[in-house]
Amino acid sequence: MKYKIGLVGFGTVGQGFVEILAEKGAEFKEKYGMEVEVVAISDPIKGSVYAEEGLNLNKVLELKGDLSAYPNCVKGWDSIKTITATNADVIVEVTPTNIKTGEPGLTHIRAALNNNKHTITTNKGPVALAYSELAALSLAKGVNFRFEGTVMAGTPSLNVGLEALAGIGIKEIRGILNGTTNYILTNMEQGTPYSDALSEAQKLGYAEAKPDADVEGWDALAKVVILGNVVMGGNLKVEDIERQGITGLTVQDIETAKSEGKCYKLIGKVWREGNQVKGSVEPQKLNKSDLLAQVGGVRNAITFVTDELNEVTITGPGAGRRETGFAIISDLINLHRKQ
Amino acid sequence: MKYKIGLVGFGTVGQGFVEILAEKGAEFKEKYGMEVEVVAISDPIKGSVYAEEGLNLNKVLELKGDLSAYPNCVKGWDSIKTITATNADVIVEVTPTNIKTGEPGLTHIRAALNNNKHTITTNKGPVALAYSELAALSLAKGVNFRFEGTVMAGTPSLNVGLEALAGIGIKEIRGILNGTTNYILTNMEQGTPYSDALSEAQKLGYAEAKPDADVEGWDALAKVVILGNVVMGGNLKVEDIERQGITGLTVQDIETAKSEGKCYKLIGKVWREGNQVKGSVEPQKLNKSDLLAQVGGVRNAITFVTDELNEVTITGPGAGRRETGFAIISDLINLHRKQ
Repeated sequence: MKYKIGLVGFGTVGQGFVEILAEKGAEFKEKYGMEVEVVAISDPIKGSVYAEEGLNLNKVLELKGDLSAYPNCVKGWDSIKTITATNADVIVEVTPTNIKTGEPGLTHIRAALNNNKHTITTNKGPVALAYSELAALSLAKGVNFRFEGTVMAGTPSLNVGLEALAGIGIKEIRGILNGTTNYILTNMEQGTPYSDALSEAQKLGYAEAKPDADVEGWDALAKVVILGNVVMGGNLKVEDIERQGITGLTVQDIETAKSEGKCYKLIGKVWREGNQVKGSVEPQKLNKSDLLAQVGGVRNAITFVTDELNEVTITGPGAGRRETGFAIISDLINLHRKQ
Repeated sequence: MKYKIGLVGFGTVGQGFVEILAEKGAEFKEKYGMEVEVVAISDPIKGSVYAEEGLNLNKVLELKGDLSAYPNCVKGWDSIKTITATNADVIVEVTPTNIKTGEPGLTHIRAALNNNKHTITTNKGPVALAYSELAALSLAKGVNFRFEGTVMAGTPSLNVGLEALAGIGIKEIRGILNGTTNYILTNMEQGTPYSDALSEAQKLGYAEAKPDADVEGWDALAKVVILGNVVMGGNLKVEDIERQGITGLTVQDIETAKSEGKCYKLIGKVWREGNQVKGSVEPQKLNKSDLLAQVGGVRNAITFVTDELNEVTITGPGAGRRETGFAIISDLINLHRKQ
């Protein structure tokens, strides 16, 4: 089966996705009978290209900074025209996350679903803000809406909760959902003050110049809402979640924890309380025997607290160019299996 | 959709499965549209019952020791007659593992598949010895053959490798695949000599009176063969695997490792070497920074070493009545999704 992709956004994740596809497309076709073609890319900075017979991915990658040099194709279509007027049947939405408005991703995803196109995103904003609306819309339109990459990048998390653990009762999910803060806390444990650890994270590209989304817990909060609503069937809103970031933690706090044989982690958590699902994000002091306490650096981890299997934990990378790009591949394979 | 189960074997795992079904059958029907009825149970010790309209599971559980007291049903059919002559359309094979011959499970599974019945097993022997034969047979007959419970009980492992991680390149899989030996090693680390730790494991029901299958590494070896062949597409035979158990380890060895900041774990491992998949089972000294070093007690864990996500680790229970019973539920839901 052949899928024609319209890629909306061509930043790190979009490029990681195209890279994997360029290298492994032939393997996916042979192994899964899944043929994937990128027919259009639209990015407000890098430019927009559309070729209904499919773009040459190696050529696209060579040009990464400037798609305007791509030869013989339609140029300059904006995101909405790319979503609605190309022959793409799967829209991959990878614009930057905005947890307050969900835009521009939310508008893109609505347009894609309303035009009966399967939609895959790694953009946390729209899923955190409007999961139930978008899920209902995709159902009504008879298309797939998938977003594995919104939590722990390509490390299977939503798929584990929804599919590999299907049939189990999940009482609670807690995890290290943000790699940047985990990197900073791991460094603070080795004696580095917060501001130096943050600078280091910025130098390595883990944290942004304006690091609030990470260090104030917004990124983890978006993932908490997604886990609570998607995996636990809750009805959480962003504003329902108690949120505390790591900026209040001092080296002294961390030393005290250490002297008690514990360590601080920024823990995102969802749990059932009566008929409701609740959520929180806050630094917690964990015993060293807690597996989450052992997850250092930029790695992420999720523990599912279940009825039949007690605790099941999965850990892996939570960000990265190819790591998140792979989440889109994973969603495509899942979509393909459902056809 | 309705599934009629023929249950072959009614020991711990079979009873755990029936327990879950008795408690949650209505939920599975409502949530997944999957209706499950047990029409027959056959066990050489507990007895055999068959009622084509379905057995009353609560009644079955009350009688667990002696099915002969179950009223108004066909009695005494042996396993083969139960597989071939009842109206069951799914055979659940949960007889004890024999890693040398695979029997009686192998004969049961062949009979079930040859009679065009979907087959689910938690029995490691047949899968370790004859996976490619049985997979080909199920394909030829157009039925499902599933065995999630053969590795890490109901903790998703094969499903993670095959489905949640579909599309990824797996270079190596290594793990703590046997809970009994991990329990013994964890206790030895706290200074308990091997023989005392083994006695304790036997007292708690983790180890059998004749503990060789666990402590000599045979159980881990079966899982290594299954992971290598099923997840990595290898062609491993039981006799290809280098195997070393934990009986040679002394408290002194473990103390030495500890003084180096390390610890011993019984590691089952499969990896690619050229075009081949190789496997081994042996005690390995791990750095404390290795996540597997942090997995104590009877818990199991598997690390997938991949191309796109580096290391992804999943941990959870590796044995237990309901934990393994749940693996059958998980296979049923997967089977149901494929219909």
